[in-house]
Amino acid sequence: MQINPEHRLTAAVIEQLGQCPDRRLQQISGALIRHLHDFIREVELQPEEWLGAIRFLTRTGQACDDKRQEFVLLSDLLGASMLVDQMANRKPAGATASSVLGPFYVEGAPERANGADLAALPGPRVHVSGTVRDLAGAPIASALLDVWQTAPNGLYHVQDKDQPEHHLCGKLRSRADGSYDFITLEPVSYPIPTDGPAGQYLQAMGRHPYRPAHLHFIVTAPGYQPLVTQLFTAGDPYLDSDAVFGVKPELVIEYQRQADGNMGVAFDFVLEPVQAR
Amino acid sequence: MQINPEHRLTAAVIEQLGQCPDRRLQQISGALIRHLHDFIREVELQPEEWLGAIRFLTRTGQACDDKRQEFVLLSDLLGASMLVDQMANRKPAGATASSVLGPFYVEGAPERANGADLAALPGPRVHVSGTVRDLAGAPIASALLDVWQTAPNGLYHVQDKDQPEHHLCGKLRSRADGSYDFITLEPVSYPIPTDGPAGQYLQAMGRHPYRPAHLHFIVTAPGYQPLVTQLFTAGDPYLDSDAVFGVKPELVIEYQRQADGNMGVAFDFVLEPVQAR
Ligand SMILES: [Fe+2]
Ligand SMILES: [Fe+2]
Repeated sequence: MQINPEHRLTAAVIEQLGQCPDRRLQQISGALIRHLHDFIREVELQPEEWLGAIRFLTRTGQACDDKRQEFVLLSDLLGASMLVDQMANRKPAGATASSVLGPFYVEGAPERANGADLAALPGPRVHVSGTVRDLAGAPIASALLDVWQTAPNGLYHVQDKDQPEHHLCGKLRSRADGSYDFITLEPVSYPIPTDGPAGQYLQAMGRHPYRPAHLHFIVTAPGYQPLVTQLFTAGDPYLDSDAVFGVKPELVIEYQRQADGNMGVAFDFVLEPVQAR
Repeated sequence: MQINPEHRLTAAVIEQLGQCPDRRLQQISGALIRHLHDFIREVELQPEEWLGAIRFLTRTGQACDDKRQEFVLLSDLLGASMLVDQMANRKPAGATASSVLGPFYVEGAPERANGADLAALPGPRVHVSGTVRDLAGAPIASALLDVWQTAPNGLYHVQDKDQPEHHLCGKLRSRADGSYDFITLEPVSYPIPTDGPAGQYLQAMGRHPYRPAHLHFIVTAPGYQPLVTQLFTAGDPYLDSDAVFGVKPELVIEYQRQADGNMGVAFDFVLEPVQAR
């Protein structure tokens, strides 16, 4: 045989896609087979390692239910979620960068007035404020800001029976001048769930499970690309090692002491128009 | 930024493996991340496609149970099982080639005398015979040949309540001159199970689910590498498109009419000594 039989095998598998009725599926499946085989050849994957991988993937699927998606978590930990997000959200200069949605978004948060306090717990408040603008700097009125974050115990309301539904969540509308503001508790860094297969992966890799503290936002306005992003707390010890690789330097914000003694932070969102792509 | 942020992300993910206590795991995980990201970038995987893949993997894990391993099946259909098998079984010239074990092997088949009939159904018999030899052609006595195959309905005993346990299975020992023989029914081509996610993959790709007819063997003898292989029926319509890519030209055997009117087929197994690697 002239060609290495291990490479002939790859060609034979890809050849079987010749009758695929969907061109895009054919492209994806062919590339997947090529990269998967390259990976297996590069590390010379052994049968017992292959079997271990099969068992791990099986456990990962079986750990998923209504409330838990371990494959999404695994994708997050491998940087795959962030990579897909980045490619789907290449923004023009000046537009606010995206970050991943994450597993804790719950639709249906109540609309809140500007200035509202999202917290139902005692504790020091922070004042979050800013504007929503277009690429030219013009204010965008009535933009919808859907916000959610952790409580001081590191849990989102959806993870925690002791918090009211939609605690530390809310939908705000920017004012005519593009401005928004709300009161909340400072978000904290937290570990991703580590009691399943994704957590086992982290531990086997010698990695910690923490995400730096952040506020989640979905900002939408008619005529603009929806923006899914996160704002990360400057100085957080996990800024450089976010377990899910969501941090971008331009999304780091500084909480500062205000004149009234409370903490405050400001961020201006810049949306990309729909026709920019 | 000088470097494409999509490539910076890949480097950042791999960097987090720096504290991995297991060098081999670190190598495998690093290569997996690199190839996975290359795949995602190459096809510019879209968020809804990524979500579709997550859902498919989840369903695949959840379809697995004691009797069913859809991830193994998927690995088979992608040629990954055969590639791992091939790399782990690079044989010296003259040694019999390997093929995949497959999902239908059941330990504990009864020992049968040479010449025994493995079939408990009426129908035309075939006589399978040959020898077990070393690379120099010397006979190997008392080699264990563990054999299993489909019934004429395309099912293995383990899939079919209507067949006795270990039907068409048996453990034979080669004689002092290395020879073995047994009587059986001719194996038939059969579809892999298509009622789960692996079957959905095949259908989406426009691929058929058939394997060409084959006899499975595990041949072992002290001092020799165990040989897991399959012998494929010459002329089978699926020889060139085996759903799991198990066929190698040197494993194709021709069933021929014998002097007594029955069909017969012969194959000599050549084992590689343990020290050859
Ligand atoms: Fe979060
Ligand atoms: Fe088989």
